[in-house]
Amino acid sequence: MPLINENRLDEYIRSIRGAYEKLLGSLVEIPTVSADPACSQAIRKAALLTVRILKRFGVQAEILKTSGHPVVIGALGTNKKNPTILVYNHLDVQPADRSEWDQDPFRLTIKAGRYGGRGATDDKGPALTALFAAKYAMGKGVPLNFRFVWEFEEEIGSPNFEKAVRSIKAFLHAQSILVSDTVWLSGNNPAIPYGLRGLLTAGLELETGDRDIHSGLAGGAARNPIGELCELITRCYDPHTGRVKIPGFYDDVLSTGREERQRFSESGFRTSDFKKAHGFKKIRFDEAAKIMDAIWSKPTFEVHGIAGGYTGKGIKTVVPQKAEAKISMRLVPGQNPRKILSQFRAFVKLHNPDISVRGEAYLDPYFAAPGGEHLQAAVDAVYFGFRKRAVLVREGGSIGAVVSLNKLLHAPVVLLGLSLPEHGYHAPNEYFEWRQVRGGIRTFVRYFEQVCRIR
Amino acid sequence: MPLINENRLDEYIRSIRGAYEKLLGSLVEIPTVSADPACSQAIRKAALLTVRILKRFGVQAEILKTSGHPVVIGALGTNKKNPTILVYNHLDVQPADRSEWDQDPFRLTIKAGRYGGRGATDDKGPALTALFAAKYAMGKGVPLNFRFVWEFEEEIGSPNFEKAVRSIKAFLHAQSILVSDTVWLSGNNPAIPYGLRGLLTAGLELETGDRDIHSGLAGGAARNPIGELCELITRCYDPHTGRVKIPGFYDDVLSTGREERQRFSESGFRTSDFKKAHGFKKIRFDEAAKIMDAIWSKPTFEVHGIAGGYTGKGIKTVVPQKAEAKISMRLVPGQNPRKILSQFRAFVKLHNPDISVRGEAYLDPYFAAPGGEHLQAAVDAVYFGFRKRAVLVREGGSIGAVVSLNKLLHAPVVLLGLSLPEHGYHAPNEYFEWRQVRGGIRTFVRYFEQVCRIR
Repeated sequence: MPLINENRLDEYIRSIRGAYEKLLGSLVEIPTVSADPACSQAIRKAALLTVRILKRFGVQAEILKTSGHPVVIGALGTNKKNPTILVYNHLDVQPADRSEWDQDPFRLTIKAGRYGGRGATDDKGPALTALFAAKYAMGKGVPLNFRFVWEFEEEIGSPNFEKAVRSIKAFLHAQSILVSDTVWLSGNNPAIPYGLRGLLTAGLELETGDRDIHSGLAGGAARNPIGELCELITRCYDPHTGRVKIPGFYDDVLSTGREERQRFSESGFRTSDFKKAHGFKKIRFDEAAKIMDAIWSKPTFEVHGIAGGYTGKGIKTVVPQKAEAKISMRLVPGQNPRKILSQFRAFVKLHNPDISVRGEAYLDPYFAAPGGEHLQAAVDAVYFGFRKRAVLVREGGSIGAVVSLNKLLHAPVVLLGLSLPEHGYHAPNEYFEWRQVRGGIRTFVRYFEQVCRIR
Repeated sequence: MPLINENRLDEYIRSIRGAYEKLLGSLVEIPTVSADPACSQAIRKAALLTVRILKRFGVQAEILKTSGHPVVIGALGTNKKNPTILVYNHLDVQPADRSEWDQDPFRLTIKAGRYGGRGATDDKGPALTALFAAKYAMGKGVPLNFRFVWEFEEEIGSPNFEKAVRSIKAFLHAQSILVSDTVWLSGNNPAIPYGLRGLLTAGLELETGDRDIHSGLAGGAARNPIGELCELITRCYDPHTGRVKIPGFYDDVLSTGREERQRFSESGFRTSDFKKAHGFKKIRFDEAAKIMDAIWSKPTFEVHGIAGGYTGKGIKTVVPQKAEAKISMRLVPGQNPRKILSQFRAFVKLHNPDISVRGEAYLDPYFAAPGGEHLQAAVDAVYFGFRKRAVLVREGGSIGAVVSLNKLLHAPVVLLGLSLPEHGYHAPNEYFEWRQVRGGIRTFVRYFEQVCRIR
């Protein structure tokens, strides 16, 4: 006999809607931008709030200090006979430029079941969804223990996470790891990724003078740092195809096999959905198989930002003093970020030794051949939760903690995301939706009910 | 018998120092940034002030309206038997970013004969220097008439100047044209340029999406506008050598002959002075002949500014929505800006038709084979003024009005600049110096005394 009654569950979900929205609002309004040093105080405040929230749910919670932003950990359930599920989410967010948003990014707006605000879908909303589900499952006697790990450095590549969780390895010991921080193919296509790309980020800077100089007086002889930076970037990759030109870059890439390509082709991925969700008119290629390959199983070189010289009104005919760019490479299974970084540094040194490479950070890619009871339970749970069939694919994003936890605990990871492409991960006007919360709680509760039987 | 007594002249110069500084202060404190639409009102105010100043000097002055910023014109002397000298200067300035300056750019600072402020040397200071000299010469009975043309659109390529002066061609009829808006080779090397480069400016913009997108979710398939703009710029030129790669770009360049190269090599130009004056540690090449060729007689491609994506603290892993760059090409005698512009547009269209080319403006290059009585009088006058031998070279900057006035009036142009490389044309912390004012007034007075004899 199942422990969970579907009608009761739905009743519970209806009953907590107001509480969910209030909690989400209280989290969204703290600007937990981990990339911005000015937000350190806000993040400390959010960590304290998070501990209070967890305690209200009956979770024994505390702050784990790191050399960077803290991690909040919690425990619910202490029966040693029961298996333990480790629930990971992150509560830090991407930067948000007010001028690009239709609303204050750090004030939750609620409109017809739509929750607008930075972090609503990535990853504050899903974190709370998992918490409400765990509490319900415990209350209904599902024989599980829970460990919560809520990170505040995910968006900057989790530089201190691995060291911090290593110190509490025994506390985190778990049968499996549940992570809700991934994105479906579309609103009708739930996805459970079994692979994530790694990430290598760096800042490039070139200074060729001590001030801007009149381009008539010195132009021709003076070096132009923007021109040189553009040239280096163009040496690194072909922006039309995305092909990276750094020697050795593709050497260790594990290519997808026929089975995986088949899986991708049956995933329901549609070029038109992809373009619509992200607002693209024209992309590098329109063939679905090529897009999936490019975003899931191929590495990238990307320029996230560039700045140099005069960018105000009109024109200022100067040879600028300096130029800067922020770049990253998404890496795929087989690639080693440390090796790629040293190839990249050598490449920059060879072609333009005056360009400095700074503030590098990296994350390993993640891959676990799809299969096993946990993944099956997850697919079943999504069907129960949403009445939609989930597909097993890869995802192109990177979650450092997934690799660290998987490595540390030798436990399977299930990536049960609730976000949709149009929710705008990292984009302006990010939002989350009640229908994903409702389906999400149903999914998680069902998942817990299933996996408690796995021994 | 010379009309001018040197001691009396020096006495006069000493006596007007306070007045000169006061007038320069009143001009510098009006932010006449022609590139910034927000400064239109300031420019109107400056034009009114300029008319008042000219009238105080006995000049009949008025504002000539254009479809852009006004031109101020004036007449001093009405004896039709005397030849007329047309004195051109400009009173608009380059933009100035307060954060890059050690002082308020729009407040004149005076320290040990050094005048700090935007426009002090380019070109408000030289304009006033010429005015004081003309007044003195008139007062001493030098048989000349003067016409003044003070422009407010020089720094944006004089888009309305030619049309405006064409309408008052008869009023401007002159024996010769005096322009003080060029730069010496060094403090000990006065230069009288006989050639200027032309200029072609444009803004480039590429928009590939309607918002920034998570680079994990779409990276690989999404176009990156920064990468594509960098690639186009790299296709346009080699930033290491400065060589422009747009087909046909060099076709019409008139190369320097042996005589001109000889002249350059004897000019006293020194690589070390050049690097020091502009604060360069390393430039494209160190050989003096190559530098002079590059800055005076070779065209350039230059990137003045670039912007795109996230440029705040840390990193934001987005595929940016759009990227922009401001570029220019300095053109040399033989090159036709209209032809180069159409080559450039075709090149952009061929390689990346989605990149828009906007806000183009151009100026023709200027060249007049060195020789003639006016140039000789100028060299003699500089020697009288500064006790230094002036060299005849070219200059790499562009002054649209020179080409327009030369074409319209068929009169020789003498480029008698007073600025030094370290004064910082277009750069932060621009300044001018009393010693250049003093020597400048001496030079101009002597020049007027000489050229009144040319019939």
